[in-house]
Amino acid sequence: MSALPISAELVTEQNGIEAAALANDYSHLGEQLDRRGIDIDAITRKVAAFHVAIPSWGVGTGGTRFARFAGPGEPRGIFEKLDDCAVIQQLTRATPTVSLHNPWDKADPKELKAKGDALGLGFDAMNSNTFSDAKDQKHSYKFGSLSHTDAAVRQQAIEHNIETIEIGKVLGSKALTVWIGDGSNFPGQSNFTRAFERYLDSMKAVYAALPDDWRIFSEHKLYEPAFYSTVVQDWGTNYLIAQELGPKAFALVDLGHHAPNVNIEMIVARLIQFEKLAGFHFNDSKYGDDDLDSGSINPFQLFLVFNELVDAEHRKAPSFNPAYMIDQSHNVTDPIESLMASAIEILRAYTQALLVDRKALESYQDSNDALMANQTLKRAFTTDVGPILAKARLVKGGAIDPIGTYRASGYRQRVTAERPSSGGSSSGIV
Amino acid sequence: MSALPISAELVTEQNGIEAAALANDYSHLGEQLDRRGIDIDAITRKVAAFHVAIPSWGVGTGGTRFARFAGPGEPRGIFEKLDDCAVIQQLTRATPTVSLHNPWDKADPKELKAKGDALGLGFDAMNSNTFSDAKDQKHSYKFGSLSHTDAAVRQQAIEHNIETIEIGKVLGSKALTVWIGDGSNFPGQSNFTRAFERYLDSMKAVYAALPDDWRIFSEHKLYEPAFYSTVVQDWGTNYLIAQELGPKAFALVDLGHHAPNVNIEMIVARLIQFEKLAGFHFNDSKYGDDDLDSGSINPFQLFLVFNELVDAEHRKAPSFNPAYMIDQSHNVTDPIESLMASAIEILRAYTQALLVDRKALESYQDSNDALMANQTLKRAFTTDVGPILAKARLVKGGAIDPIGTYRASGYRQRVTAERPSSGGSSSGIV
Amino acid sequence: MSALPISAELVTEQNGIEAAALANDYSHLGEQLDRRGIDIDAITRKVAAFHVAIPSWGVGTGGTRFARFAGPGEPRGIFEKLDDCAVIQQLTRATPTVSLHNPWDKADPKELKAKGDALGLGFDAMNSNTFSDAKDQKHSYKFGSLSHTDAAVRQQAIEHNIETIEIGKVLGSKALTVWIGDGSNFPGQSNFTRAFERYLDSMKAVYAALPDDWRIFSEHKLYEPAFYSTVVQDWGTNYLIAQELGPKAFALVDLGHHAPNVNIEMIVARLIQFEKLAGFHFNDSKYGDDDLDSGSINPFQLFLVFNELVDAEHRKAPSFNPAYMIDQSHNVTDPIESLMASAIEILRAYTQALLVDRKALESYQDSNDALMANQTLKRAFTTDVGPILAKARLVKGGAIDPIGTYRASGYRQRVTAERPSSGGSSSGIV
Amino acid sequence: MSALPISAELVTEQNGIEAAALANDYSHLGEQLDRRGIDIDAITRKVAAFHVAIPSWGVGTGGTRFARFAGPGEPRGIFEKLDDCAVIQQLTRATPTVSLHNPWDKADPKELKAKGDALGLGFDAMNSNTFSDAKDQKHSYKFGSLSHTDAAVRQQAIEHNIETIEIGKVLGSKALTVWIGDGSNFPGQSNFTRAFERYLDSMKAVYAALPDDWRIFSEHKLYEPAFYSTVVQDWGTNYLIAQELGPKAFALVDLGHHAPNVNIEMIVARLIQFEKLAGFHFNDSKYGDDDLDSGSINPFQLFLVFNELVDAEHRKAPSFNPAYMIDQSHNVTDPIESLMASAIEILRAYTQALLVDRKALESYQDSNDALMANQTLKRAFTTDVGPILAKARLVKGGAIDPIGTYRASGYRQRVTAERPSSGGSSSGIV
Repeated sequence: MSALPISAELVTEQNGIEAAALANDYSHLGEQLDRRGIDIDAITRKVAAFHVAIPSWGVGTGGTRFARFAGPGEPRGIFEKLDDCAVIQQLTRATPTVSLHNPWDKADPKELKAKGDALGLGFDAMNSNTFSDAKDQKHSYKFGSLSHTDAAVRQQAIEHNIETIEIGKVLGSKALTVWIGDGSNFPGQSNFTRAFERYLDSMKAVYAALPDDWRIFSEHKLYEPAFYSTVVQDWGTNYLIAQELGPKAFALVDLGHHAPNVNIEMIVARLIQFEKLAGFHFNDSKYGDDDLDSGSINPFQLFLVFNELVDAEHRKAPSFNPAYMIDQSHNVTDPIESLMASAIEILRAYTQALLVDRKALESYQDSNDALMANQTLKRAFTTDVGPILAKARLVKGGAIDPIGTYRASGYRQRVTAERPSSGGSSSGIV
Repeated sequence: MSALPISAELVTEQNGIEAAALANDYSHLGEQLDRRGIDIDAITRKVAAFHVAIPSWGVGTGGTRFARFAGPGEPRGIFEKLDDCAVIQQLTRATPTVSLHNPWDKADPKELKAKGDALGLGFDAMNSNTFSDAKDQKHSYKFGSLSHTDAAVRQQAIEHNIETIEIGKVLGSKALTVWIGDGSNFPGQSNFTRAFERYLDSMKAVYAALPDDWRIFSEHKLYEPAFYSTVVQDWGTNYLIAQELGPKAFALVDLGHHAPNVNIEMIVARLIQFEKLAGFHFNDSKYGDDDLDSGSINPFQLFLVFNELVDAEHRKAPSFNPAYMIDQSHNVTDPIESLMASAIEILRAYTQALLVDRKALESYQDSNDALMANQTLKRAFTTDVGPILAKARLVKGGAIDPIGTYRASGYRQRVTAERPSSGGSSSGIV
Repeated sequence: MSALPISAELVTEQNGIEAAALANDYSHLGEQLDRRGIDIDAITRKVAAFHVAIPSWGVGTGGTRFARFAGPGEPRGIFEKLDDCAVIQQLTRATPTVSLHNPWDKADPKELKAKGDALGLGFDAMNSNTFSDAKDQKHSYKFGSLSHTDAAVRQQAIEHNIETIEIGKVLGSKALTVWIGDGSNFPGQSNFTRAFERYLDSMKAVYAALPDDWRIFSEHKLYEPAFYSTVVQDWGTNYLIAQELGPKAFALVDLGHHAPNVNIEMIVARLIQFEKLAGFHFNDSKYGDDDLDSGSINPFQLFLVFNELVDAEHRKAPSFNPAYMIDQSHNVTDPIESLMASAIEILRAYTQALLVDRKALESYQDSNDALMANQTLKRAFTTDVGPILAKARLVKGGAIDPIGTYRASGYRQRVTAERPSSGGSSSGIV
Repeated sequence: MSALPISAELVTEQNGIEAAALANDYSHLGEQLDRRGIDIDAITRKVAAFHVAIPSWGVGTGGTRFARFAGPGEPRGIFEKLDDCAVIQQLTRATPTVSLHNPWDKADPKELKAKGDALGLGFDAMNSNTFSDAKDQKHSYKFGSLSHTDAAVRQQAIEHNIETIEIGKVLGSKALTVWIGDGSNFPGQSNFTRAFERYLDSMKAVYAALPDDWRIFSEHKLYEPAFYSTVVQDWGTNYLIAQELGPKAFALVDLGHHAPNVNIEMIVARLIQFEKLAGFHFNDSKYGDDDLDSGSINPFQLFLVFNELVDAEHRKAPSFNPAYMIDQSHNVTDPIESLMASAIEILRAYTQALLVDRKALESYQDSNDALMANQTLKRAFTTDVGPILAKARLVKGGAIDPIGTYRASGYRQRVTAERPSSGGSSSGIV
């Protein structure tokens, strides 16, 4: 534990400042919940057991096609990224695993495993990349990868995915996430049917290489980087993929990958019902795939998604085993801070969903008492569950106030000194 | 044929005015197409064979929840509606069938059949209605129909659908279209999973009553009349329904029932590929389910939809047998004129799609020549196919200029005198 | 006060059940807020002073173009509507005024005034109606009203608006709200420029009849009932109207009248900055102008709107004097319950916005500390302000639990007996 | 003329192949239009006089935040970009000016002017860039430029805009286009009102430096690169800017910068009516600011925009003098080909709009004959105006078939040899 990036003394000291207020608030909230027939400690135990993975690329500063404005002390490689991830886990105690990206995170898998072990970090789903060209790659993905018209390009993409599985095996990962940028920018450029046939054929080859105890997650997205059509454009197509591939294939939901106005919580319910929900890439958005911090734009929607998840757990829905990951682009904040705040918002939504009186809700639904059904959800959502979240962190050795403790630690200043900038901002691709 | 509503002499006379110009334009277009390797007469024959059904309710004036402003001479019942449909067919020769709506069109089925025979009209898919309460109906559909929480309401809705099939059998229909308004207006009001389970159970009961040579079409819609969630919200759910029900079940696409920005032509391609496309409810829209005249807002999208249909025909896609119907709300025009103009726009898109050089397109697609692939579509779309459409009407006894001929006939003035108004405009439901 | 619809004893009795828990929760919240430097009683006083108007038409059951499903005991005229409004005010103490609609609420203005006085209700902005045809109206508004191509129709619409002002004068109203359905369903149907010129001319005539101490509110809406273009389509056009008319003209914001994804709180800020914000029609929506209950779909957005309003108050923005009204369609709930719940949600958002630490926020904004700026808003939003809302109602004689007290009162059962149904559901206008 | 990049002989030779067919088609179209009372040669003259500017950055391959896939022979600097622009102008004869971007195109302005003169190219509006950081720039634009909280950053941005004007003066430009990326990614990050006040102050400083015969164009955009709010988010704010700045300030419309479903042609009409339309950045889009080729997704919308422009010209609208530029991102095509095809599509829409029978249209509008008004537009839109476009190019020395002639010229192969690649694809900024 001595390897952890923030000093345990600092965490203890910082926690001391807030401890009395937290105890008071937790106690009062416990009293309130008790009136509603809820045991606060049982909720806190569930919250303490909830985890969400950090994407390795999330600890670097993101950008847009117009520009990327680097932040200070950015990690220069996967080992420094893991250090940053360890900060997030140390203070929030909600993010014990990291999701790697091949080839961006390429390194000796055994060294990666050792580094993870030293920091107390495990490895979540592996991510392949066929939406950009790696240096010295033989064939370009300019016109597609797994669905490319040229069999040689498809084969290269298949092999890349299989290689990603191989790396993951060493790390202890149990899933492969496949997101492709394949699609078209012009009506006529691509034949929708033939492109999807090629995609399915390629995915079947990847599926065949999947170990028995692994799962494969396909991810849909309405648009971007392709701007007229995308091969895996929505959950309907994603479901078809999971169905065609077999029992180890599931459909992943990124909250920002849908058309405007779409009811995402309903899509989640459908995928659970048909036993094909892989899990989530969490973020928030106002316009498109904005990749903003989870819960920062529409926290009630995030709650409604968790309402479906807790309902499924409650009903013991078959094959229900979702994987949770944050997937955001941090353009104007310190990525460590954004990831800590986002993990907390995700847990907040989960905790609120746990407070829903499901027996009352079902009864209101059955009698078509729409108003009271809605009030039942709102009562859970408007409860200030902050004390539960803080208590769950505290009991696991984390920080009552992760952002404040992080700022007090001087970690960013320290790594800024240790990691010389690679040259400031880049000018983007318009 | 003497029963037809417009005098044959008038049609002949009106056609005489435009005949020479049409002959000249058709001849020149034939020359142009010949340079592109296309036989104009072969195209005209295909166009002449294309049909789209008229919905019986389309010949009345539509409205919004704010108001309905009646037009003069509106049909007062199904027999007068059939007269109006006969005008559309007589002048366009593209709409030989009518799609009935139960219970709005309730009448002795044998009389309906006889009336249709007299007017040269057949009967297309039957439509049930469980989105509003009929007079003297035992249970209300306020909180749903086929997915209602109360088994008695579901049973009533099932029986209504079976009754609709029975009527259709007498009329020679071969399909039942099921669109429901079931859904919710509040988060929490409905449990998505349980509601969908009930819907599937009800539909299975309807499916069991379907004759062997019939098909059942379910129709998805993102929202309205329910404004938070809809049971059959999108093509993904619609596909699941068709899959759960069996080989006689298909997913119907109404062009106005999707989220903003969604690529509808791609959905069409997916449903064809997985052998579950029922067909279309044609209309156009700018915002929501606006039910505007086909091709009036985005004619290129309509062309792209037909590009998929012609491509499927070209590839001899298995199980490909779509049903075509217009479904619009005519709030500010004479419905007969709107339906004639819409039928023509639908045929225009089909004709343009027939002109696509599919061999060249495939070759550009295979070589990722996005620009020329797009130009290949645009070349077909920018061709003025008006002469082909007019010629196809002419050879079948229709009008070169249906709108002009209709106006010259004085039909609307005649029926206005015959059909006293039921009392002007209604004030809507806000 | 004896005229109030719910017995005072019942309210007292019901409040007794919750009083001890409320006192405890209020006290603990006061302690929490005190730690943040906030005086809970000062907040409660502000909340108690906040009002939002009830639209007379809101107490009837709404519907869609597909159907309207009546509820039991619906008010049969404006006097019964006022009774229902009095229930809402009696229990929530947040809705002391009613907004009338001409001609739906036509009655002897003096009798209306007397009825309002007896119930303790005042009269808010008057609403004209030129989006539907009243019985025996000379000219139809089928093709527009204030912007109609025919001067006689425009004159009729102008006179109707002036008549509405005259009625309002007797009632003590101080504002006229003008929402029109004018627009077009087809490209080409209307010349945008000429239609807007006619609209401005008509509004100038109405403006000329406005008393000196009145204001006129124009309301924009992207679409519906017109589905291709709307004369007053967005806040840009609405601002131009207010600017062209003069200092008594302001732009009203209905939360459901915008394009998908639009940042409404920013529009609010712009209208405040340019001194043209009239006020709000509150509701919530997921797809279009869904007219759902306020705060039921996106409560964080409602909070962000109030964050702008409280910020403007804080900055003492010139000409800042917004009018607040609820404008919803209650299709599946008891309208009295929905309006009480909505008034509470609006006050919740206002209360949360009052808790924002504006000094800290400004400092984070100035230093571009995006994360802490956002956390500052979230801290206010996640505070459970329920005890403040209940206390504010209690001190003014209202109910701690308005919905529960209403249900306990048997009011709906009583009026259902007193108000025989006019004949059940209507079948809609498709 | 000897400096032109494609050999005149080749153009002549290629034109020879199509000349007879064009003459035939043009003659027949003339006959058709004559029947409609239109003089084809008068139309062709107008079309030949129409120009649209090329953005210097458009001739390079674009990309997304995920990747940029370079094309062969990309220009390595502004002088090579001008060579590529000259190809477009030589073959289409519709793009005689180039719009430069400071600092991307930085070079000795006199050399630029001389190069332009040699190629027969003039210089259109100048574009400043404060949405990315230039190398060695003192202050970063990470948190804004003209609206930044820090006065020093604002001053730097002001000076950059003034420098851009200075460069433009030498080149003969007469307008400055200002598009900024300023905005926020989090609710709370920015105070909308204070940010807009700062923006207006900065713009006033730039405006003060504008020569008397120049215009300044501000450009609105709903989102991207900022994903929660944008300082100049829509045409309403853009109008306010133009109004605040003064008579030389106008609002520029980029077709891809609006919310979903918005009626852009109506915005164009409003800006014309209030004498503040700057002009256009042409492109097409399906989802967001996709920057696809003009007319490739919704050609009817492009026609409707031009319908407003031709109508304004027809009505002699005061202050009507729009600037036209293409602004696209060419990710999967040869940029020269896309720009030629796009210029042609823009001219196609203009030509179709010229064919609208405005007298008939006005009459249908006045009598509320919505159907015939729409048919009047559709008749113009469905006319195949290809022969007019080709003839207009031919008479000005351009190519009948610009794409075919370009491919036949081997220009891309030649420059690929001359311009060694800078190193292939880049990996994007996620």
